[in-house]
Amino acid sequence: MDMKIFNLGKNTAEKEQEAEPEKQAEPEPEPYDLIIIGGGPGGYSAAIYAARYNLRAIVLARELGAISESPHVENYPGIESISGMELMQRFQKHAEKLGIETKYVDVTDIKKGFTLFNVTDSEENVYKGKAILLAIGMEKRRLDIENEKNYEGRGISYCATCDAAFYKDKVAAVLGGNDTAARYALVLAEFASKVYIVYRGERLRAEPMLLENVKNNPKIEVITNDMVIKIKGEGKVEGAILKSGKELAVDGIFVAIGAVPNSRLAGKLGIALDEQGYIKVDASQQTSLPGVFAAGDVTNFGVKQVITAAAQGAVAAHFINDILKERKEE
Amino acid sequence: MDMKIFNLGKNTAEKEQEAEPEKQAEPEPEPYDLIIIGGGPGGYSAAIYAARYNLRAIVLARELGAISESPHVENYPGIESISGMELMQRFQKHAEKLGIETKYVDVTDIKKGFTLFNVTDSEENVYKGKAILLAIGMEKRRLDIENEKNYEGRGISYCATCDAAFYKDKVAAVLGGNDTAARYALVLAEFASKVYIVYRGERLRAEPMLLENVKNNPKIEVITNDMVIKIKGEGKVEGAILKSGKELAVDGIFVAIGAVPNSRLAGKLGIALDEQGYIKVDASQQTSLPGVFAAGDVTNFGVKQVITAAAQGAVAAHFINDILKERKEE
Repeated sequence: MDMKIFNLGKNTAEKEQEAEPEKQAEPEPEPYDLIIIGGGPGGYSAAIYAARYNLRAIVLARELGAISESPHVENYPGIESISGMELMQRFQKHAEKLGIETKYVDVTDIKKGFTLFNVTDSEENVYKGKAILLAIGMEKRRLDIENEKNYEGRGISYCATCDAAFYKDKVAAVLGGNDTAARYALVLAEFASKVYIVYRGERLRAEPMLLENVKNNPKIEVITNDMVIKIKGEGKVEGAILKSGKELAVDGIFVAIGAVPNSRLAGKLGIALDEQGYIKVDASQQTSLPGVFAAGDVTNFGVKQVITAAAQGAVAAHFINDILKERKEE
Repeated sequence: MDMKIFNLGKNTAEKEQEAEPEKQAEPEPEPYDLIIIGGGPGGYSAAIYAARYNLRAIVLARELGAISESPHVENYPGIESISGMELMQRFQKHAEKLGIETKYVDVTDIKKGFTLFNVTDSEENVYKGKAILLAIGMEKRRLDIENEKNYEGRGISYCATCDAAFYKDKVAAVLGGNDTAARYALVLAEFASKVYIVYRGERLRAEPMLLENVKNNPKIEVITNDMVIKIKGEGKVEGAILKSGKELAVDGIFVAIGAVPNSRLAGKLGIALDEQGYIKVDASQQTSLPGVFAAGDVTNFGVKQVITAAAQGAVAAHFINDILKERKEE
């Protein structure tokens, strides 16, 4: 498969006409069949399938998908245990082997032209594509308390895998009660001397195996029915005041209070979202705008897992291939 | 997780009462939360997820899923290339590590009781379960020509991976035009001196990368718009007569003319099937009968891949867990 987009194949006659290149207009780069936005399991699975269908595809991603922050993924069938980063790198390498390139850019806009989509990144590069896959995941919900801004990067973190090692023999608090919160606490407990989980709900909502590990870890203390209302410290986090009046002496606060779908680009295109802002898709992963598909956590499908995102990417590529073939035969 | 079904935990007082075991009735084995029927990607992915949800589950399978016959699987995201057998073994091992046992049996009947399902195998063993997952795949379509029966196991095969090695330096014909037919021809070409693909359609319908490999393989000759109408040979296959009148001298005939959903058990339960006999499922993989879910090739979902079957299994386990939890809280 030839993935070079500028090499359109020229015969000798054409080459001779190009003797004075100044007079020739730069040839338009051939459009991509599929532009994949997002570097998670949905995006790369679509890339792998697109390549196998002989589609010319590219992945545009700010970074590898959020799962790459997970220290252990143990529920991707066929791979008993792997770090999220390694799993995503395997997906990416798999796609690369089949000729799919990743560009690490921030996509800022998508516009629908007459037949093609124009995708613009933050450097004003424009990519033309016949179809789009939005596999752009979720954005973490930010902590929304009075003096939070003063402490970002000074003891407040949104990624335990990234920052846990800075808390060797220190004390940290994890805010939240879901799988992510439990995972953060477990990662932190490998370094910190003490880890609190502070959750406003009655009991943690993490999956049973994670809960079990949290319960059995002597370093972790769970505080429910409570929440952080103020952070204390001179220039960096030194403590947290809870709603109950309790005060925790902590060196770091890890925020795991959920995420919201990253559907801004879809909104710009006028694509239908559900009440929570997830992109609505049908069984072929098609959005409300023909030619635009979505896969993974950003969609309104209720089960958010690597395996489901990967399947959705494959399904999207399958139907995109069908549509492009039909178009050719029109 | 304790998967032993007879060990219900007895205290000392109970043990003393059991001093005369003859008088005690055998305790009913505790029912499974989930009985998974089928040993393919859908079944084992459900098993992995069920185990992680702390459900008591078992896999009942005649054998590992049909994908285990594929010599190369190169589209399971994250694993660049693996044999289908090894991939399925990895799924199975993954489930085993989490405590899920496989019983190699042929399920002959499922009946719905008041709250439990009774699953019977061909040895008349009965398994009781709160929920059922049908992940029983497809059955290969048999060749339907006059004298076929005489040659089964004597040159007619339905599995190239199983039998290709018997055709070293011999000539084989593959009947069919889909991905499986292309794969069969490629596997056979590693051994045979010559491989025909005979397909009644205008052109092969396999995916582009497979077609490319078929085209580039000098041992493979594709014959389209034709079909085998009679087999020749004394006690074993020696030749095939085509509809066009052409005669091929072949030592083996590999049948790859598709498959039909293995939905007999679902039919017995009165579960709704679509026109082609696939089990109808909703977005949570629930069939028309509450408590019975389906995943993989046997369902009416149009994309039949390892990755989609695996996702469906995970989704089914997710919603089965939800339902069982709700039931507990009733």
